[in-house]
Amino acid sequence: MNLTKDTKILIIGLGLIGGSYAMALTKQGYKVRAITTSQKSIDYAIENNFIESGTITPDPQLISDSNLLIFALYPHTFLEWIQQYGHYISKDTLITDVTGVKVSIIYKIESLLPEGVEFIAAHPMAGREVYGVENATDEIFKDANYIVTPTENNSPQAIEVCEQLGHILGFASVSRLSPEEHDNMIGFLSQLTHCIAISLMTCNDLPYLEYYTGDSFRDLTRIAKINDAMWSELFMLNKENLIRHMEKFEAEFAKLKQALQNDDIETVRKIMRKSTERRSKFDKQK
Amino acid sequence: MNLTKDTKILIIGLGLIGGSYAMALTKQGYKVRAITTSQKSIDYAIENNFIESGTITPDPQLISDSNLLIFALYPHTFLEWIQQYGHYISKDTLITDVTGVKVSIIYKIESLLPEGVEFIAAHPMAGREVYGVENATDEIFKDANYIVTPTENNSPQAIEVCEQLGHILGFASVSRLSPEEHDNMIGFLSQLTHCIAISLMTCNDLPYLEYYTGDSFRDLTRIAKINDAMWSELFMLNKENLIRHMEKFEAEFAKLKQALQNDDIETVRKIMRKSTERRSKFDKQK
Repeated sequence: MNLTKDTKILIIGLGLIGGSYAMALTKQGYKVRAITTSQKSIDYAIENNFIESGTITPDPQLISDSNLLIFALYPHTFLEWIQQYGHYISKDTLITDVTGVKVSIIYKIESLLPEGVEFIAAHPMAGREVYGVENATDEIFKDANYIVTPTENNSPQAIEVCEQLGHILGFASVSRLSPEEHDNMIGFLSQLTHCIAISLMTCNDLPYLEYYTGDSFRDLTRIAKINDAMWSELFMLNKENLIRHMEKFEAEFAKLKQALQNDDIETVRKIMRKSTERRSKFDKQK
Repeated sequence: MNLTKDTKILIIGLGLIGGSYAMALTKQGYKVRAITTSQKSIDYAIENNFIESGTITPDPQLISDSNLLIFALYPHTFLEWIQQYGHYISKDTLITDVTGVKVSIIYKIESLLPEGVEFIAAHPMAGREVYGVENATDEIFKDANYIVTPTENNSPQAIEVCEQLGHILGFASVSRLSPEEHDNMIGFLSQLTHCIAISLMTCNDLPYLEYYTGDSFRDLTRIAKINDAMWSELFMLNKENLIRHMEKFEAEFAKLKQALQNDDIETVRKIMRKSTERRSKFDKQK
């Protein structure tokens, strides 16, 4: 398939991300319909011109009449949906997703799909600390990365359409990684950071800390407000990568602690200079 | 002493913080002079109306002619300065500081001061990732906390003047803690957070991480750009508190890792819910 203004796009799951996709695509003149579990979300999305129409039932006709399916569901719900309704998807339909982990999802989905239906996975690295279609906005894509994670089963055309989708949505950067590279990277950049934020937030019961908190602590714990259902699922699905990164971090942290304990100020300063140098690289990309 | 527009204020150390103090006080109509090590800094501060005048020598007459001395130096330089030039300070002069740790500094300074000179310590919890008087601005005080840390040797009047100074500088909040409470709190909120940021920044050499970095990682490592001379000194001076907090964090982080290893999703979700609840309290203070 090609992605044109005539492509019949169906978004499954109108939460924060699905809703933001719908908003962005409709703004750009694409035809978007949706299936989600709450009538309230459908009503909101229609009233706000995110979608043309939608339903809370997995209507076989609507599914088979769509050319591009975008799944914005929790990982296990995504798998269940394909198991239950995947056979309604027409030949030559392209499906994509927004799932935050890849290896544990992609190959299962591929094995469940009907002949002639291609799955090209993507991870929009965008989000907010609030949920639901009512908080959807295409603003979250503006400074964010969109990563396509093809397997050897993907056609060059599907990869191209998926990258095109990232550009239409308005992402600052669209790139490509293997599912394995993606999960390793995300285990470090996103999952480890959330583990750190959570642990920092829960490790101390000093009263009235909030009255003395400066920007450092607020910055390090912004993501400590976390959707426990979604994130625990993502952690478990990428457990091996995550635990390996946690252990690397623990070792580095222990090295710094040991240097402090030994009054080894030169090692402390060396770590700080390495940190400062490495962090500078991240500024340049802003 | 009382703090009035006639008070002769002397700032020792015109760096980022000293310079920002000078700027704020002069703006509010106070008389500010300065001693610092660089003539360039003096020139810049005069040209930009931060100070009336200044010198790079510890001029005995200038020192003895001042009523309020504000030390904005590294901790060891502050101690050395008082040892070398403290005897020039006149009776009934009040001195204060901006040092980021308190217990290891305050009692030493108190013991070194001439009879009739009172030291009331304070910690302006403000800063930037850049240094020097050229980057000074009173903007950094606007959303920040100013903490006065009196000992039993302080007079109510000195404490009041010091709190008044915090208000004049434009801090969002002015409060009071014992030096011991301060160092415990700062060991957690500021020093532990810097240790975490540094360790996260240096624990992984994955290439091209910066191309995939989202806000989470950037937020957690903003403070990983660090002045190694200053921070290593502050860490060492508050080592016991810092190491105790590092150990608490390590234990909490290990608990989360263990739960992941055991597929104990309920414990993972419980930690996440506790984290979310605790973090909400910090929002309210914004």
